[in-house]
This record gives sequence, C-alpha cells and structure tokens, in this order.
Amino acid sequence: MDAVANGLRSNGAAAGATQGKPINCKAAVAWGPGEPLVMEEVEVAPPATMEVRVKVLFTSICHTDLNAWKGVNELHRKFPRIFGHEAAGVVESVGEGVEDLAPGDHVVPIFTGECGTCANCESSKTNMCKTYRINPFKSTMVSDGGTRFTVVDRHSGERRPVFHFLNTSTFAEYTVIDSACAVKINPRAPLEKMYLLSCGISTGLGAAWNTANVSKGSTVAIFGLGAIGLAVAEGARLRGASRIIGVDINSEKFSKGKEMGITDFINSKASGKPVHEVIREMTDGGVDYSFECTGIVDVLREAFVSTHDGWGLTVLLGIYLTPRMLPLHPMELFNGRRITGCVFGDFKGKSQLPELVDKCMQGEIKINFDGFITHEMPFADINKAFQLLEEGKSLRCLLHI
Amino acid sequence: MDAVANGLRSNGAAAGATQGKPINCKAAVAWGPGEPLVMEEVEVAPPATMEVRVKVLFTSICHTDLNAWKGVNELHRKFPRIFGHEAAGVVESVGEGVEDLAPGDHVVPIFTGECGTCANCESSKTNMCKTYRINPFKSTMVSDGGTRFTVVDRHSGERRPVFHFLNTSTFAEYTVIDSACAVKINPRAPLEKMYLLSCGISTGLGAAWNTANVSKGSTVAIFGLGAIGLAVAEGARLRGASRIIGVDINSEKFSKGKEMGITDFINSKASGKPVHEVIREMTDGGVDYSFECTGIVDVLREAFVSTHDGWGLTVLLGIYLTPRMLPLHPMELFNGRRITGCVFGDFKGKSQLPELVDKCMQGEIKINFDGFITHEMPFADINKAFQLLEEGKSLRCLLHI
Ligand SMILES: [Zn+2]
Ligand SMILES: [Zn+2]
Ligand SMILES: [Zn+2]
Ligand SMILES: [Zn+2]
Repeated sequence: MDAVANGLRSNGAAAGATQGKPINCKAAVAWGPGEPLVMEEVEVAPPATMEVRVKVLFTSICHTDLNAWKGVNELHRKFPRIFGHEAAGVVESVGEGVEDLAPGDHVVPIFTGECGTCANCESSKTNMCKTYRINPFKSTMVSDGGTRFTVVDRHSGERRPVFHFLNTSTFAEYTVIDSACAVKINPRAPLEKMYLLSCGISTGLGAAWNTANVSKGSTVAIFGLGAIGLAVAEGARLRGASRIIGVDINSEKFSKGKEMGITDFINSKASGKPVHEVIREMTDGGVDYSFECTGIVDVLREAFVSTHDGWGLTVLLGIYLTPRMLPLHPMELFNGRRITGCVFGDFKGKSQLPELVDKCMQGEIKINFDGFITHEMPFADINKAFQLLEEGKSLRCLLHI
Repeated sequence: MDAVANGLRSNGAAAGATQGKPINCKAAVAWGPGEPLVMEEVEVAPPATMEVRVKVLFTSICHTDLNAWKGVNELHRKFPRIFGHEAAGVVESVGEGVEDLAPGDHVVPIFTGECGTCANCESSKTNMCKTYRINPFKSTMVSDGGTRFTVVDRHSGERRPVFHFLNTSTFAEYTVIDSACAVKINPRAPLEKMYLLSCGISTGLGAAWNTANVSKGSTVAIFGLGAIGLAVAEGARLRGASRIIGVDINSEKFSKGKEMGITDFINSKASGKPVHEVIREMTDGGVDYSFECTGIVDVLREAFVSTHDGWGLTVLLGIYLTPRMLPLHPMELFNGRRITGCVFGDFKGKSQLPELVDKCMQGEIKINFDGFITHEMPFADINKAFQLLEEGKSLRCLLHI
C-alpha cells in the first residue's frame, strides 16, 4: 500500500506540468452500439470551472455500462463515447472554483454527484442532487454543454468530440469530471479496492443500510446474484440479518453467494412453484426485506409478494429497460408492503463515503472487497472484460490503467 | 353530555336482563345490490367467545358502505346483509373470554381490529392484524363462521341469516362484533362526535400523522375533498403544514374545505393543464406529501407526480375498484418519490384511539368534529342519507339510532 501511495505522490508531482494544458492519453472509445471498444489516443481538455481532471488508476465494468454500450435505449446512442463509472484515481488538476480538491488527492468518482447546496442536497431524505444526479442520457458537461474529450475520426480524419457517460467516463487514462462527482478519500486506502465504492458496493451496501435499514435478526431475499446482489448480502450480513435468501436462475452463482454470506438459495427455474411461495414457507409468511437486482418486471412482482405483509419492503436496484409498468394493483399497496427505488444506496457520496472508507481502514467495518473482484487484467483487455460480464462469468474485473 | 352518559348508564343497567339471550331489534337490511335498505326486525344472537354485543347509538355512512351496497365487486354480493362501520355505542353484554370490555363501556367499533397477540399486532410497523384486519369480502364471524343476525324472509316466510360487514355491521340497534374490533373510550367523551373516529377521521388524521408523518411547514396536496380528504387536511393543519392544496372536480366543495383549513384549491376540470403541473409551479417542484382519496387510478398518477422528487410521498386512501394496475413505470420509483397505502390511518385502534380521545377531551388536540357532520336525521331515514352521500351532498350524515 505504501508503494501505491508513493507512486501516487510522484504522480501528483508530475501533474503540475500538465495543469491547464490538454493531455493526450489512451481511452477505450465506443464508436457504435455493441461494437468492440477501440483503444484510441484522445485529447483531454483541462478541467473547466468546478471540474477536476483525474488520472484514472483502476476501473471496472458494470451492467449500466453494458446496457448503454449496447444502446438498448435509443437515447443512449451517443457515439463516439467513453463509458465507465466504477473507478478510482488521483486528481491531476482542478478547475476554477474547486476548493475541496487538489492535485494529488485520491478520489473515487460517483455517478450520483453532490453539489451540496441544492434543495435535494440540503434534504436528509435524498441523495438525488438536482444538478448531478444520475442521468444515463446525459453526454456532455454541465458547465458549458461541451465535452472534454476529442478524438481523430479514422474515416474522416477530423477531430471530433467524444461524449461523456454517467458523470464519470472512466475508461480513459485521464477523465474530467465535475468536482461534485469526485469523492476525496483517505490517501492510505487501497485504491484497487476502494474503486468498488464508486458503484457496486456502495449501491448494495447502502440499499441494505440506508434504504431498507435492515435490522439485526431480520430476513432478507435477494433476487439476482450479480455484484449488486452480493453487495446487498454483504450489507445485510454486516447488519446481522438472520437469514439471507439468494435467488437466481444460475446455480453456479450459489457457491460465490455462500462465500459472501448468503444462507439459503433458490434456483427460480428449478423451484417447481413460484419463488414467493417458497420464500413465504421458509420464513413464516415472507421476508422482511426483498431486493430486486435483475431489472426484470416479473421478478419485481415476485420480490414484492415475497415480503411479509404489514411491513415488508422491496427495494428496487435493477434497471427496468422495457416499457412495462409496475405489475401491481393499487389495492396491493394496502397490505402494508412497500416498494421503493434506490440509487447509489441512498448514499450522499461526498458527505458519507469518506467516513465509510475511514471505518474500513480502521477495521470497524469489514467489507469483503476481494470477494467481488473475480478477474484482473490490463486496461488494454477491456473488451475481454466486457465479454466476461455479459456472459455472467465475472462479478468485477479489475482493470489496471 | 351528562344526560347522554346517564342515559347510557341506564342502558347498561337494562342490559343485564338481555344478557345471554337473543335481542329482537330494528336493523336496516340490504336485500340486494343497490336496493333501498329495509328496516327489519332482526334477531341478534348473544355474543360468542371473544365477542361483544353493542347497543349502537350513532352511525353514519361512508363510501365503503356505498360500494359494497351497490355490489360493485361481485364478491361483495352477500345478501341479506347489514352494512355500516362508522358508529359508537355501549356494550350490552360480552361473550366468554372477554376481559377488557364490560357491559356499559362506551365503545367505537373498528373495521381494522387488533387482536394484540399476532405477529402483526406485535409489530410496531403495521396495524394489519392477521385475524381482524379489514376485509370487505368477509361476511361472517371469525369464531364459528356463522352470523349473529337472523331475519324473516318476507317471501319464503323462513328465518335466514343476515351477513355481517367489515367486522362491524352498525346499521342496527344492536350488533355483535369481535372484542378485537371494539375500542373502549373515555365514557365522558360525546359519542355523537366520537363515532367519527370509527372510520373517516381516524383514517384521514392518521394518514397525515402516522403514515406520512407530515411535518411543520411542509406542503400537502389532497385529491378528493370528501370526508377522508378533509380529515387529512385536519391532520395536516394540526401538524402545522404551511400549505394544504385541495383538488376536486366540484368547486362547491371548496367553501367547506376552506372552513376546514385548506389553503389553496384546484378544480382539476377547470385548471387547463395537468394538476401536477399546477402544483409543481405553486410549490417550487412539488408538494412534500400527496393524499389520493378518490380511488381513481388516473388521479393516483397525478397525485404521485405532484410530489417533489427526492422525498415526495403519496399516500393512497381511495378504494381502487377497477382492475387497472398502478400506472407507474418501475424507473419512476428511482426519483425518490414513494407511494404507500394506508388503512385506518395506520392507527392500532385499541392501543391508540383511547389516548386520542383523552387528548381531545383535555383540549390538547382540537379536532373539528362538527365540521364533518353536515346532516343529522333519525335512523329510519337511512335511505335518504345514502342518497345524500351518493350525490356528494353530505360529508357525514349522523344517524340517531
Ligand atoms: Zn454501476
Ligand atoms: Zn445538489
Ligand atoms: Zn369508512
Ligand atoms: Zn392481531
């Protein structure tokens, strides 16, 4: 870890030379929906007002990248584009007005930023900043509506802008993000683990801690055992849930799930009856909390009716890409079951993540970061990493930039 | 009030003579869907185990009675039947095992009972007792699946059972209810007002206090200005809401609304644009809480999108009789808006209403009971009272039995 920290300090020292100037570096550029990313030389402009330029050291791919890359929703189809939102790095330089960050700071980018001053940031009830909240359709910077990346188009030979993604665009050696979307963390924390707080782990842990407020001894069902689902399990385990039931159609995920603290498993394809019936039988009427991590509307319904009436809470974490509406009748909300969406685990990133990192460093909270990293490879192999995730073979593939 | 109390005490004294015996008395019997009620002589059996027989003194009609009487849902069509669930009276006698009630006690029947011992009653999160929760399709007593009313069929001349409704059946001089559904209140409280706690006022007040937890200075929108909507307004007013916006298609309801503390009005038929747009403009992005009291699915959607993103809460109080599902896309739950149903204001009736009554008696809580009682008539005129409610001309018509 000291070596990493030292390496980063020298990086910080080098940064002075590039401040205020464009940086030419490598980035994995998506030229069209579903097309393999191309490692291009891009030019990264200096950060504008309230922006920071970050040297990305570690990144990985999550399903939100996959969906946008495939262009499932046509509003996603802005190309060329640099995807990536789960990462960690070091601030290279800061734009005008940035006071809470300086070159050399260790940062984790967040796709749900925190300006700190809007009505939503000032409310304790939400992390949905009015300006920097998650917006998968946003492709340019807030300050001037432009991009900070340009690339030479191989066909036309002309330099053209490269679109941003999810306030972050971390599939690049350097990226520019709003300072509202950069969380400064303890410089002694290992960035090659902390990058997981940028999306997956924070989302899942926070869903259990902040959104559901899972209590000791309670029962939990998790639908979909990808990284988010396992992070929910981690959160529930750390809260002392008595039973954590994992549901998936792929039994191969169960051994990993067991390792991560899931206590019971249901293969919904093999259960022979609706999953909610199995769960209600197992738990005397239903679980206290269910977490829907698949993005499938029919699974959402199963998750909802798997909870105990009177107090069951279903937390949605999937991305529901079809036009299908909620498959619930209004009267079904009168049995005391509740349902709520959750973005970024309801964490206010800049306010709350630094403390979480500190608690991890002090050993007060023991998150199994390593359990999530199933693969590791150099940045250049990013297309392989996409494939692994798409085939359900990886949780997180750590890319070294 | 003393006169009432004295009258009741003598009633209590008279009760001894009838204990354990059937009582013949008048009841307003519904013989078929939408048919005028017929004042019949019915026989009311003594209360069985854990039941009480109550002399009903005051009752009134609420929309739930109307819907069931019309037989909108075919599962409602159990006739002959005695409707009525908003009432107050005096215990005439108690069945075996009843320890918390005695002849002469002043009681308010509740359609959402509280056994006190099931998992749901033991949870602080719900008032949905496993056994005695609201169930509009239930038509017989829990203890033996029978009815406590019989009547002579005018056609066949035979005595036949009369079905119960909503755990209460208060359109009768005497009714039998489960002790779990009878709340003993302060005998000095005026029953001709307290009967409103049996449904309407508790539901609306509780929706604002318990379900939404409306805070001082917050903004509220109420869709549908019937008795429930006005009771929500009362609850919001007592909590110090800064703005209470009333929405209805009938502007005639606005003067009553104003009297009850509603600060702004929108006639949704005359607003010229969607109500949620009007509300968002009025409130800088939306209200903190919206309450849907119409039972109309399209209004539900307006109520949902009228709240502020990040923290808006929509509380459902209507009865949604059509098969239409929730008109919300799952992704709409990711903006921090929440939606929840509310039954009986989330009050645990037996545990919490007595204290509410005491606080009203002590002047600590000033509920405008009188504001809800727009009409008064003898029990015999019940069909007129039905008509008034159906035509939207009354809030509550107090029937003296
Ligand atoms: Zn992600
Ligand atoms: Zn903000
Ligand atoms: Zn009612
Ligand atoms: Zn109970």
